[in-house]
Amino acid sequence: VRALVVREGGVSITDVPAPVARGETIVRVAMSGICNTDLEIARGYAGFRGTLGHELVGVVESSEDGAAIGARVVGEINAGCGRCALCESGDPRHCRARTVLGIVNRDGAHAERVRLPARNLLRVPDTIADRHAVFAEPLAAACAIVERIPVGADTRVAVVGDGKLGLLCVQVLAARGARPVLYGKHASKLAIAEARGIEGCSFVEEHARLGTYDVVVEASGANAGFGAALALLRPRGTLVLKSTFHGATEIDSARVVVDELTIVGSRCGRLADALALLDARAVDVESLVSDVMPLARGEEAMRRAEEAGVLKVILQA
Amino acid sequence: VRALVVREGGVSITDVPAPVARGETIVRVAMSGICNTDLEIARGYAGFRGTLGHELVGVVESSEDGAAIGARVVGEINAGCGRCALCESGDPRHCRARTVLGIVNRDGAHAERVRLPARNLLRVPDTIADRHAVFAEPLAAACAIVERIPVGADTRVAVVGDGKLGLLCVQVLAARGARPVLYGKHASKLAIAEARGIEGCSFVEEHARLGTYDVVVEASGANAGFGAALALLRPRGTLVLKSTFHGATEIDSARVVVDELTIVGSRCGRLADALALLDARAVDVESLVSDVMPLARGEEAMRRAEEAGVLKVILQA
Repeated sequence: VRALVVREGGVSITDVPAPVARGETIVRVAMSGICNTDLEIARGYAGFRGTLGHELVGVVESSEDGAAIGARVVGEINAGCGRCALCESGDPRHCRARTVLGIVNRDGAHAERVRLPARNLLRVPDTIADRHAVFAEPLAAACAIVERIPVGADTRVAVVGDGKLGLLCVQVLAARGARPVLYGKHASKLAIAEARGIEGCSFVEEHARLGTYDVVVEASGANAGFGAALALLRPRGTLVLKSTFHGATEIDSARVVVDELTIVGSRCGRLADALALLDARAVDVESLVSDVMPLARGEEAMRRAEEAGVLKVILQA
Repeated sequence: VRALVVREGGVSITDVPAPVARGETIVRVAMSGICNTDLEIARGYAGFRGTLGHELVGVVESSEDGAAIGARVVGEINAGCGRCALCESGDPRHCRARTVLGIVNRDGAHAERVRLPARNLLRVPDTIADRHAVFAEPLAAACAIVERIPVGADTRVAVVGDGKLGLLCVQVLAARGARPVLYGKHASKLAIAEARGIEGCSFVEEHARLGTYDVVVEASGANAGFGAALALLRPRGTLVLKSTFHGATEIDSARVVVDELTIVGSRCGRLADALALLDARAVDVESLVSDVMPLARGEEAMRRAEEAGVLKVILQA
């Protein structure tokens, strides 16, 4: 089958053997989304080798559960060992022996077929188009914010970074009843939030609200965004780190101690939360689609996803 | 009056004008303790100029409250504006207009006399000797850990750094019912904790418990300690930052996100908590006293406090 494969030296569209079920489920991929993490992995982060991609929607092609065949599904990316205490509690996201779709020891979704455990798959309501369902994974990651810290109508909350992750985070916060402010550099991206009634703010113009936010979500993926996010926080405020910067990040730890800040790392959410938001049309993902390109043009699509001003690039398998 | 004063270029024992009450209380200092923060300030951190010192015990010499005169007291170091919401709630520790004893815009306690607002002073029970009462401020800082995060008998908790701050932190955690492990490099210092029934561990020998602690307190004040503290944490664990590193600290932010760690800055505690622990003899501070030296030898005392193996150096005014 055709797949977008990372090897030493870069990514390429390659013919690879079709995945074999071995007790898991084979999904025929309809669409897969390119994430910034894909771009980092392609640059060599984490030493992953294999098929990229962890955002997908597809149709079950083969399964030990015959009734599942033909179902349209999205997939949780963490595949746990199934036996440890975390897995037994139904949350394999921190299982130490986990594989992670297209990230850790498991071939990913930028391919015609992908293999996942049956328990990782969730059926997609008919109300949600493929090009929206493919956002379930990153939208779930945005939902993970509110899984880790309470955010309500009275929380002064900001999101730093107007890329696709920031635009999802700010919409999730708004859907949860908060009135977040989005800080970014791109008028066209801020406008997407503003169209949803969310205040957008060019960071360089901000002075009045420095040091005032209870919670700031760092979603820019840039060191400068990290510093900006800290500057927005009040004493005893909380910084939620959503984006991974690879390599070391410099922090002003004296500021963290003196102002008694809290920094909370946040990674994967629950796809069910994301599907519920999409089903309720509580978030706009359509505005985040920059391109839909055939999988065969995957290398070009990766370059496209890196361009300034581009949001989500979707591959069609 | 004699005082240990920071100026451009270093610290020196100097004769300075006696403090004038201006509605506050004048305390005749009996003893003051040298903190690592004093050493950092003497190196130029934070641009402070004036009398150093923020750990003291003394006797009220003049006060608008006549009944207070002659009382033996310790002093909270944050002096708030008295009018903002934080101050009105009784917690000036994050008042934006605060002065901080010997740290921010307020002459400190390495002096024969010191001035503080009456509301900052707490009477010391007769059961507590001066050389122990002078630990109230750093011991309160150790108590601040449990003010910010829950720690109980079932919490797997470690302290990194066997200096005076680490030794106070680990004893507070033990007094709160936890069974902390102290990681350090100095057998003689680990032995102080071990004498209290607290497990001491040479960090270089530790491999088995990497990635297993729920909570790790960083009290080493060193970048290496910060990295070591992160390495001890389990996924979704909490790092409590007690010591300030001046200059930028490098963190592996990808680790913070992927393992969803929480980092909590922690600064000042409440002196009442510390006095209660001292009164109950729930912590051993006597073993932390390396030297008691006259204020007149303050410059030598500062050098002494920087020597390897030395714990608390106390000045006697």
